[in-house]
Amino acid sequence: GHLVPWIFCKWLQDKFDCEFYFQMTDDEKFMMRPDLTLEQTHAFAYENALDVIALGFDPKKTFIFSDIDYAKTLYKISIQVAKNVTTSTAKAVFGFKNSTNIGMVFFPSVQAAPCFLPSVLKGYNVPVLIPAAIDQDPYWRITRDVAPKLGYYKPAAIHNMFLPGLEGPSGKMSASKSDTAIFSVDPPKEVDKKVKRAFTGGGQTVKEHKEKGGNPGVCTIYQYLYFIFEEDNKKIKEIHDGCKSGEVFCGECKNLLSEKLVKFITKHQANREKAKDVLDKFLLKD
Amino acid sequence: GHLVPWIFCKWLQDKFDCEFYFQMTDDEKFMMRPDLTLEQTHAFAYENALDVIALGFDPKKTFIFSDIDYAKTLYKISIQVAKNVTTSTAKAVFGFKNSTNIGMVFFPSVQAAPCFLPSVLKGYNVPVLIPAAIDQDPYWRITRDVAPKLGYYKPAAIHNMFLPGLEGPSGKMSASKSDTAIFSVDPPKEVDKKVKRAFTGGGQTVKEHKEKGGNPGVCTIYQYLYFIFEEDNKKIKEIHDGCKSGEVFCGECKNLLSEKLVKFITKHQANREKAKDVLDKFLLKD
Repeated sequence: GHLVPWIFCKWLQDKFDCEFYFQMTDDEKFMMRPDLTLEQTHAFAYENALDVIALGFDPKKTFIFSDIDYAKTLYKISIQVAKNVTTSTAKAVFGFKNSTNIGMVFFPSVQAAPCFLPSVLKGYNVPVLIPAAIDQDPYWRITRDVAPKLGYYKPAAIHNMFLPGLEGPSGKMSASKSDTAIFSVDPPKEVDKKVKRAFTGGGQTVKEHKEKGGNPGVCTIYQYLYFIFEEDNKKIKEIHDGCKSGEVFCGECKNLLSEKLVKFITKHQANREKAKDVLDKFLLKD
Repeated sequence: GHLVPWIFCKWLQDKFDCEFYFQMTDDEKFMMRPDLTLEQTHAFAYENALDVIALGFDPKKTFIFSDIDYAKTLYKISIQVAKNVTTSTAKAVFGFKNSTNIGMVFFPSVQAAPCFLPSVLKGYNVPVLIPAAIDQDPYWRITRDVAPKLGYYKPAAIHNMFLPGLEGPSGKMSASKSDTAIFSVDPPKEVDKKVKRAFTGGGQTVKEHKEKGGNPGVCTIYQYLYFIFEEDNKKIKEIHDGCKSGEVFCGECKNLLSEKLVKFITKHQANREKAKDVLDKFLLKD
């Protein structure tokens, strides 16, 4: 799920030769999660960085930073944003309560900072596009309100849908529940197992599936293929229609996805190992 | 007025050979004051640093930092504090409203950070004492609540009273109203003028003063002498009693204070010029 916007960013960089700034919000995760230490969220951030680099971004045009490690540059931008956001706005937009800690209340201004970072670093106004999952939209709404007050362009946003969790459309992927998602560090055998166990849109029995057909709209397997792993639109339509008509069975789709996913993850994990050696080339420092 | 806690800190360093950490809250001033830019509050901070250095602190044991320039180290400490302070607490303690900007709401955690900074820098727990004006007390109350949760000693605090403004006990010193205070950069002639114009506790007329005596308790001149400029306790008692009995006149006290103040400020300004060359030796960097 995490990979989806990053894969899209990689596509954007390839198509438009644009720069990519990747913010690792280790501060937010720490302040939001009572169960996690700063050391843990900081370490998680750099695990994410390896996944980003493994996708093949151009080190000359890709800038990765942790909120904690890059705080000097970010804080200076953040306080300019913060001065223009009332507590009332933050409460209304994010649902903060009086019981919310004061770090979380400030955080929207840290989240906003990278929208203005390229302009600050270059010394002239740079338009930015933020690809993110739809749940992040409120941050950019606030950021767009503040931008003109600071003399910057409003950032543009583009959002992707959520991939369903492996347990189906009602569940959510969760890093703490290993069966809900495939992790970039899962062994390929485990990936295959997870795919085979995943929720599908197929009938309860072969007989029912043949008679009534399946529902790709709620099918995890279908959506993984549709969003990422099957790039051939003709093939996707065949699967979709075949499922609905009861001619394509879940086993076939699972085999197809597993094969593609195992191939992807095997290559990704090799790239991820190599990423450890070049990580430093991607990091912004202040 | 600003100088009072710093002069006390200098006394503490001389007596106890202790380290002195001086936080310049240029971020707070910027977020609190709609009329000031970041560049302005940042520049003001370094003007304050010159005054501190001019008082004669030991460069080996004195560490000066701006919240903006030292944000990398401070932010990491601040978010640990922030995680343990609810919005509710910050509102109750500081009177924040929903209209308060989110930077001001976060700021108590930045203000708290230096209490733990020596421990962070040294890697072992260091007890700290915070000399400050009494209005700053709420910050240390919060900091003391959080300290044990982070594994640090609770900071101790010691507070000084406010010096009255030159216009008397009802007014406040204000950097934007030049007649309310003596500034460390005022020309000595201006200092003399300000002392001569200041509010006193004397009678309205010589006759009245002789008959009824004056009131040193509300007298600006007396309090400047008492708090800082007349170190001889016997002499202070003479002035106090002489004023009350109507034998010592305002003119005498004003002459005494002006002489001492002009001497102090002349020396201070020379030291302040020299401070510009050694400023860098005092600055903490991250």
